[in-house]
Amino acid sequence: MDQPQAAPGGGASEARDKTPRTERGRRTLRKLLDAAAVEFGERGFHEASISAITRRAGTALGSFYTYFDSKEEIFQALVRYMSEQLRDHVTPRVQAAPDEIRAERIGLESYLGFVREHKEIYRIIDEAEFVDYESYRRHYETTVERIRQRLEAGAARGEIRADVGEIHAWAIGGMNVFLGMRYGLWDTDSDISEIARIANDMLANGLKKRD
Amino acid sequence: MDQPQAAPGGGASEARDKTPRTERGRRTLRKLLDAAAVEFGERGFHEASISAITRRAGTALGSFYTYFDSKEEIFQALVRYMSEQLRDHVTPRVQAAPDEIRAERIGLESYLGFVREHKEIYRIIDEAEFVDYESYRRHYETTVERIRQRLEAGAARGEIRADVGEIHAWAIGGMNVFLGMRYGLWDTDSDISEIARIANDMLANGLKKRD
Repeated sequence: MDQPQAAPGGGASEARDKTPRTERGRRTLRKLLDAAAVEFGERGFHEASISAITRRAGTALGSFYTYFDSKEEIFQALVRYMSEQLRDHVTPRVQAAPDEIRAERIGLESYLGFVREHKEIYRIIDEAEFVDYESYRRHYETTVERIRQRLEAGAARGEIRADVGEIHAWAIGGMNVFLGMRYGLWDTDSDISEIARIANDMLANGLKKRD
Repeated sequence: MDQPQAAPGGGASEARDKTPRTERGRRTLRKLLDAAAVEFGERGFHEASISAITRRAGTALGSFYTYFDSKEEIFQALVRYMSEQLRDHVTPRVQAAPDEIRAERIGLESYLGFVREHKEIYRIIDEAEFVDYESYRRHYETTVERIRQRLEAGAARGEIRADVGEIHAWAIGGMNVFLGMRYGLWDTDSDISEIARIANDMLANGLKKRD
């Protein structure tokens, strides 16, 4: 399952390097992955077909096999691609935050915004639990690892409590994923910036009564 | 999808009432549901079979059809059954807690313990997202609703901040589910009481530095 970190979601099998070498190739690969997100998101892994993906992408069937050997392989690449898209959406916003508490608030708000724009992310990541457990687990492990690093950096700068670590990061990751399901996926009307403000206030100050 | 609240996970179709009326019937139904948990947990919905469930339960195939019309129907009943088993495991422990902050700690610790004993719960609840979305959503909505009620009761008793509500409850639910996946399902060595203590301390006091 170990793949070299390649072009967007790029799968490189042991047999041959399928990483596109030209800008045009990278564009085709992205078109295939975007089409796969719609196809798997709408129809699920088992009902989805390679021919429908290439039809949606407007590419020839041959292009598909330039980059992927099978439906399993593009699904695996798609999980990584979505994970990277999410990271690329959230990370610059979080890095621009003035401190770690506000970084977590911005991280949640931008995650909720991402979910509203990419509703298929839940179905795809969650289906990976059944199609390719390795990808499923890696998505959460890398996402939570980024939270852990943020927390520890914030603690080192003296912005938050000093004892933060992996347990806190998993707790925050779960909080975000559930709020994303409830207020990003199911309920598309509520004010995500208000949701993020309220959740972040609990994260910052806790449930205890203020004195 | 609205079912009357019946015997354990009991499904009652519109056509006929399949709720067991005798203790022996309730025992058979529970045997079938326990066997279904193992079968669906090990093989997944699509690979699972009714005959394997009755074999595991040590019951005749006819008993299956006394209570269920299809594999879909027992899967749906199983999701409700697991949801109820979880509630029956956690609720009395939580209710014995001296205050709401400790109730959340005990809730998390007993949830982690439940996951260690019922590892199949993740696979079954998560597969419901694809097999029966209504059951999937109801499981989380009822679980989170219990948290919300606990929080609001704790606030009314003056044990925690006064402004708690649904957003806080979804955040806590997600926290628990992710900690359960990481430390209940994947890692079976770590000390769950220590995990619960650390997560609860963040929940109680927040990420801010203590003065």
